[in-house]
Amino acid sequence: MTAQGGNLDLADVFAYIDEHRDAFIDQLIDYVRRPSISAHGVGIAEVAEYIAGVMQEIGLNTRVIPTAGWPMVLGERMDRPGAPTVLLYGHYDVQPPDPLEEWVTPPFEPSIRDGRLYARGVGDNKGQHLAQILALKSLLAVRGELPCNVKVLLEGEEEVGSPHMPAFIQEHRDEVMADLVITSDGPVDESGRSRILFGVRGVLSFELRARGANRDLHSGNFGGVAPNPIWTLVHLLATMKNAQGEVTIEGFYDDVLPLTPLEQEALAKLPIDEEAVKASLGIAEFDEPRERGYFERLAAWPTFTINGFHGGYGGPGSKTVLPHEAVVKCDVRLVEAQKADDIFAKIEAHVRKHAPNVEVIRQGSMEPSKTPLDSPYAEPIRRGVALGQGEEPLLVPALGGSLPDYVFTKILGIPAFGVPYANPDESNHAPNENLELERFIKGIKTGAAMLTALGQM
Amino acid sequence: MTAQGGNLDLADVFAYIDEHRDAFIDQLIDYVRRPSISAHGVGIAEVAEYIAGVMQEIGLNTRVIPTAGWPMVLGERMDRPGAPTVLLYGHYDVQPPDPLEEWVTPPFEPSIRDGRLYARGVGDNKGQHLAQILALKSLLAVRGELPCNVKVLLEGEEEVGSPHMPAFIQEHRDEVMADLVITSDGPVDESGRSRILFGVRGVLSFELRARGANRDLHSGNFGGVAPNPIWTLVHLLATMKNAQGEVTIEGFYDDVLPLTPLEQEALAKLPIDEEAVKASLGIAEFDEPRERGYFERLAAWPTFTINGFHGGYGGPGSKTVLPHEAVVKCDVRLVEAQKADDIFAKIEAHVRKHAPNVEVIRQGSMEPSKTPLDSPYAEPIRRGVALGQGEEPLLVPALGGSLPDYVFTKILGIPAFGVPYANPDESNHAPNENLELERFIKGIKTGAAMLTALGQM
Repeated sequence: MTAQGGNLDLADVFAYIDEHRDAFIDQLIDYVRRPSISAHGVGIAEVAEYIAGVMQEIGLNTRVIPTAGWPMVLGERMDRPGAPTVLLYGHYDVQPPDPLEEWVTPPFEPSIRDGRLYARGVGDNKGQHLAQILALKSLLAVRGELPCNVKVLLEGEEEVGSPHMPAFIQEHRDEVMADLVITSDGPVDESGRSRILFGVRGVLSFELRARGANRDLHSGNFGGVAPNPIWTLVHLLATMKNAQGEVTIEGFYDDVLPLTPLEQEALAKLPIDEEAVKASLGIAEFDEPRERGYFERLAAWPTFTINGFHGGYGGPGSKTVLPHEAVVKCDVRLVEAQKADDIFAKIEAHVRKHAPNVEVIRQGSMEPSKTPLDSPYAEPIRRGVALGQGEEPLLVPALGGSLPDYVFTKILGIPAFGVPYANPDESNHAPNENLELERFIKGIKTGAAMLTALGQM
Repeated sequence: MTAQGGNLDLADVFAYIDEHRDAFIDQLIDYVRRPSISAHGVGIAEVAEYIAGVMQEIGLNTRVIPTAGWPMVLGERMDRPGAPTVLLYGHYDVQPPDPLEEWVTPPFEPSIRDGRLYARGVGDNKGQHLAQILALKSLLAVRGELPCNVKVLLEGEEEVGSPHMPAFIQEHRDEVMADLVITSDGPVDESGRSRILFGVRGVLSFELRARGANRDLHSGNFGGVAPNPIWTLVHLLATMKNAQGEVTIEGFYDDVLPLTPLEQEALAKLPIDEEAVKASLGIAEFDEPRERGYFERLAAWPTFTINGFHGGYGGPGSKTVLPHEAVVKCDVRLVEAQKADDIFAKIEAHVRKHAPNVEVIRQGSMEPSKTPLDSPYAEPIRRGVALGQGEEPLLVPALGGSLPDYVFTKILGIPAFGVPYANPDESNHAPNENLELERFIKGIKTGAAMLTALGQM
């Protein structure tokens, strides 16, 4: 394998992109100066119409489709019967810009400094899906047609948890159906190296709530008389995960799929300096179990994290109180093929058995998503990224945090690939969000190259 | 045993007390209208001088003795060489009166309603030690001398934890030394029945503090990578006390003295409606271990209460955070002959063994105090209470909360008795603190009767 795209020849398209560099950057500036803050309900509908107009203008058959929340923008161009259909997913909403006072230049007044464009949403996600759209524009300008069938789906509620995505995908199954989906979001590898993501872990959040007496009591007069809800939760939790780091909820690991040899091989190639990570976190040792490798922790195993534990006195000094209530908030990161419903049922059964008076409250969940590294679409995508980025990408099996990729892999049943274009220090969700302009241009080239490679299948 | 005082004849003294009822109540009103709030440093020095003057005037040789905090008032009258010397302990400081708006009449404008005097400090503790002083005054008025030797020690910092009592008792050992100490504080039994308290449990407060990474982390990116301080504390705590309610810290129960047959007998006589207690607390079952009796829980066993557990997210909904720090606050109630230093050393050793990175921070402690039910002074005190109160008192072995009685039993090495005079609904530490005037007058009689019975030994 080389860092080249094999028999891909995109010299003409890449030249067009380089020639139009300034116009493309102006187009990005025009897009990111328009606020579209889903959390605050600011500007979303207007920006949906705006980006739909951009897509329509370059030749996509585009609709703005209402949902129970903010609308979806769906464009398509089905030029090549028999060729693969690629769904490009992105989101046109952005994070709130607070705290405003920490921005060097205002979040919706785009500013170029040191080769980067600073603006809210420039990396997350406007610059990245605009790169895909401009890839389509460039291919159409130079070649007169697209190398494969393309659908573009832009959501307006990703930054508030994509509440209407699963229902939308189910209801519009035929309209969005494709052979694969590519999402360009988030950053390249910490090292700056480009990468292809094959999935994410799922997540299940829940709360455990224990009650003792009907009021706080004096520990001298009622300690040992009234049950202590903190002790109740301590003893319950200790039955759910042991000190060696193993989750001891019955059946918890039943559906965990072992990593494939290909995944193990890919994880082994990911760059990591474990000592540097420890130093940066200020820890002497990684969490139990100690023998696991860094990426094995994030890809191969579900986790059970206590996000918070609160009950009783928390002020300065001491207070001899026997608290009447305590609450624990937890999340479980799910790996393939665990299912949120099944794991929650197992947690509920465990609590019912060990501490029947403790209340279990289910909160949000997302299923894990995993695309095999040997998917037939993986190789053309790799070739496209290698040519567009000018380097061999890292291949990253499903690991880390959670995104709603499962709506594609589990509801549509199609492989999902992440091809991020942003710099690792894009400061998404933070002040001074930015995108390196060179990465924006490379993103346009990468989009064109991936689609061309997929069209050659 | 009858509800009478045996061969005690105090008809003349009781008649004197009844005749001076109004004057005694006026004296109490004059005392409680003077604020002496140790927590706010309001009026303490003035009230120390005031009550010292009252004591001097009735014929006690009285001094106001400075400490590193507020002064002690010490009076004595040693009329009877060879007779026992009784130390009467009380405190002239009061709780802050907040919240003021909940008082029906202002806290320092004493008001009589329905046979009760309402004022801050009337029950806790001015009315109770003034009853003892007026008992001395009545005995001197009627009999011309006291039936035994008497010392009166009034503290000005009891409501802020008696920080200077141990040092004062050690430094003034000879001046305060007596054969026994009697404290009249707190209420009679919940049922309204009078009682004699033979001690209190001790207390040891401490904090456990666990740290993970140097900052809060994303649970998807760092769960299973960085240690979770909440899990660390959960697993540590689970090794310190099991779900059956047994403390599993090595050596924790080593020094626990079993209840004596007399104590078991006394506990069995204490009135309790366990179902009514459960209903009042809103609990279905008492804490583990289930088989223990109500008073056995409070008298025979040390407890290990978690007062508070705080770490990570505690707001509404969920947050997928991996917290970097968590804190647990605890108290242990100590029974005879456990020692706070020894138990803390055992806790420290346990934590060092099971979770060496968890910090253990010692907070306040008080030793337990226990006077044998068959102390030779118990019977004369019982006779005095029976005559003064007109009913047989309950005998209460050391149980419940903690008071600094150990400065008498452990530092001076003398037996300590509690003979509370206040009604169970005195609302000490709360708005509308009050004392039933009939109990105040009975307290004066009880004081006179106890000293007379002790003088007959």
